[in-house]
Amino acid sequence: MAFGFQCLRALPVKYLVAKVVDFAEKTKKVAKDDPRRVIHSIKVGLALVLISLYYNFQPFYDGFGVDAMWAVITVVVVSEFSVGATIGKIINRTAATLLAGALGVGLYSLAALTGSIGKLILLTAFVFLVGSVATFMRFCPRIKARNDYGLLIFILTFCMVIVPGYQDDEVWETAYKRFSTVAIGCFTAVTVCLCICPVWSGVELQNSVSNNIEKLGNFLEGFGAEYFATMEDDRRSTVADKSSLESYKSVLTSKNTEDAMVNLASWEPRYGRFRFNHPWKEYIKIGTLSRQCAYKLEALNSYLKSDIQTPAEIKTHMREPCVIICSESGKLLKELAGTMRKPINQYSSISSTCFSRSDLLKTAAESLKTLLKGQSWWEQAVVFDVIPAAAVALQLIEVVTCAEKIAKAVHELTSTGTFETEDTIATPTPEQQPNNMRREETVVPEAVIMIGDG
Amino acid sequence: MAFGFQCLRALPVKYLVAKVVDFAEKTKKVAKDDPRRVIHSIKVGLALVLISLYYNFQPFYDGFGVDAMWAVITVVVVSEFSVGATIGKIINRTAATLLAGALGVGLYSLAALTGSIGKLILLTAFVFLVGSVATFMRFCPRIKARNDYGLLIFILTFCMVIVPGYQDDEVWETAYKRFSTVAIGCFTAVTVCLCICPVWSGVELQNSVSNNIEKLGNFLEGFGAEYFATMEDDRRSTVADKSSLESYKSVLTSKNTEDAMVNLASWEPRYGRFRFNHPWKEYIKIGTLSRQCAYKLEALNSYLKSDIQTPAEIKTHMREPCVIICSESGKLLKELAGTMRKPINQYSSISSTCFSRSDLLKTAAESLKTLLKGQSWWEQAVVFDVIPAAAVALQLIEVVTCAEKIAKAVHELTSTGTFETEDTIATPTPEQQPNNMRREETVVPEAVIMIGDG
Repeated sequence: MAFGFQCLRALPVKYLVAKVVDFAEKTKKVAKDDPRRVIHSIKVGLALVLISLYYNFQPFYDGFGVDAMWAVITVVVVSEFSVGATIGKIINRTAATLLAGALGVGLYSLAALTGSIGKLILLTAFVFLVGSVATFMRFCPRIKARNDYGLLIFILTFCMVIVPGYQDDEVWETAYKRFSTVAIGCFTAVTVCLCICPVWSGVELQNSVSNNIEKLGNFLEGFGAEYFATMEDDRRSTVADKSSLESYKSVLTSKNTEDAMVNLASWEPRYGRFRFNHPWKEYIKIGTLSRQCAYKLEALNSYLKSDIQTPAEIKTHMREPCVIICSESGKLLKELAGTMRKPINQYSSISSTCFSRSDLLKTAAESLKTLLKGQSWWEQAVVFDVIPAAAVALQLIEVVTCAEKIAKAVHELTSTGTFETEDTIATPTPEQQPNNMRREETVVPEAVIMIGDG
Repeated sequence: MAFGFQCLRALPVKYLVAKVVDFAEKTKKVAKDDPRRVIHSIKVGLALVLISLYYNFQPFYDGFGVDAMWAVITVVVVSEFSVGATIGKIINRTAATLLAGALGVGLYSLAALTGSIGKLILLTAFVFLVGSVATFMRFCPRIKARNDYGLLIFILTFCMVIVPGYQDDEVWETAYKRFSTVAIGCFTAVTVCLCICPVWSGVELQNSVSNNIEKLGNFLEGFGAEYFATMEDDRRSTVADKSSLESYKSVLTSKNTEDAMVNLASWEPRYGRFRFNHPWKEYIKIGTLSRQCAYKLEALNSYLKSDIQTPAEIKTHMREPCVIICSESGKLLKELAGTMRKPINQYSSISSTCFSRSDLLKTAAESLKTLLKGQSWWEQAVVFDVIPAAAVALQLIEVVTCAEKIAKAVHELTSTGTFETEDTIATPTPEQQPNNMRREETVVPEAVIMIGDG
């Protein structure tokens, strides 16, 4: 009996301990995955302490009274992880507060000219109209992407200025206090955000896009070794790299994340290697091309896992050009990913390697085509056995085109001259430009047309 | 001279007028695309008028003073387009306000026990600690998905309760006022949201997932007619349907939208045909399978646009089974989309049609395999010419498997018995269940394993 009670008591404690341990482990993982998260949390804590002490500063409190709380609130809501997100919110918040404050004071003055009943009716009508119209504007796609928060604050401030007008006539003071406290809060938040280990959305975006290209490269290298493995030891050596054959899947669903990062990056001021007006939209183009390539890799991956397989002896015939395409296009993509991360003065040397790879890829693709057009090697085979490997070969020819489009887009990005290095900016002259890049510009115009497709 | 001035004056006016017209047209389109947006805007305006008038109500203003403004602010920030989003924000906001208020009062009482210097140090330490820890918690994936807003409000309320404590001892009153005004605001917002044309995230999610499946079906029907068109008139008749061959592309990038909608739907109470605890996660599974199917359609589409094409006379040999697969799997998917939208008591009749289509598809896939294994028809052909069409045939065989997986997932969803109709819930007995569904349950276990892949 006593033992039974003990068991009953022990159970929830054990369960609770297990839950706590599990939670602690997950939290540790969150911090380990990106230690900047811990720094950001400390930064927010610090900004809050700063603004609280400021609140405690008597002249400030005497000036604003309880409204001083808006400075604290502003710090809480605008402190975001990246500089772009913080500045985007700050610009939206200050602009919206200023505009809504001015509109509120203007409309209130208009309403105050009428009698008390007229004022009540007019103020109610203004609240309804401004609230409805501003809410509707939030549905417009372009405004939603960049100024959704601003419109929310616009409605909020307008109501805060107009609504107390029902009771007293202090609209001017309310508008002034609101703007000043918001400005103080924004100043504190942006100072802490910029001065202590800032996280730049531009750098995040660049890393994300280049990491995605690297993942495509890793898959291609792994795929060639896996699909065209001939001997038992070959197969065994590639088993360890299985994870590289799956990591490309995250590229398939990367669209929304990249779009959001481009939006945030565009709020950021000039810094580091990025100049003002850096062509952030080019990353959307490269991202779209990467996803198009990832869809082709998804098709290749399905051939790898399919029940219908080509016998190894048939694969042997097309092994050489296919393996060359896989490994060279993999290397090309990984080099392009590296190019995007490096300063532009090191670009020419990298692109010359890219150029030689690109030529090698073209030759391999041509020889693969010639092979497929030949009749000698497959005459004894059943077409059903040939198809999967031949379909893989066709897909690989398309992957080559895709990789070249990515190379062209990366080249366009890195040659815009808005990257900055410690040395002068070395934009290659047409003569210095790799031949394949120049050729591409006339041969593959679809690259530009296909931007919006992914 | 005068003419020149006129031109100069005319130019910006023209530009301005063009801009305004363009903006008006875009705004009109936003309203036309979804008229519920206009209704939502009017609802928000109405909720603001209601809360403003309440603010004007003397006993209310006398009780809360300027803090009554928090009721107005709450209405502005929690009024979202769908019921799920509004309720999610309201639950987060009230729970966070309550918890942070209680924690704030508790910690303040603790700090107040020490001297004035000790109180200052302790309060500062609490602000830093709570601010940092709560900010860090916002990075945990599960919390971020559902309680990000709640944590923001937690930090906000905690600061609002603790920070004025530096100046006076009214923490209890602050906490009480804050909670009451937030509760009044939430009540107003949820009443307007639920009583006037509510928009349910659950219905939106269901429509989005079923529309996506329909898009896949449309592509398949159009693809069969386009790729295997034999005569000139055939080709001409399909040109009009070109848009159906592109609409599937939106399915490729639907992941984030669907995940967000599942999250919002899970906040919604029981309503209409959905019971409490409706298995919203099943939609994620169906969405993932739809995207896997869309990737295959992307591969098919690339064969349609490829430079390397199989001559029409070779295509003719495999035309029949391929066209059957395209049209039948297209119809199957469109019927499944219809099933998801209809009440469950009409389900059995629909699934019997699905069953016959599924059998037809299996037969067609088998006959296609047999055809590809035969040697008579392609002996005179060059393998290079045969490959593209044969690769399309292989992809179509995979599309059949994919469509059956979607059918199984839709069947699982509609047979969970959490759908409600005006009549009794008619869950089919094992005998009534279509044979292919029962077979699938043992034959295709991968459907469950692959959930997280898309």
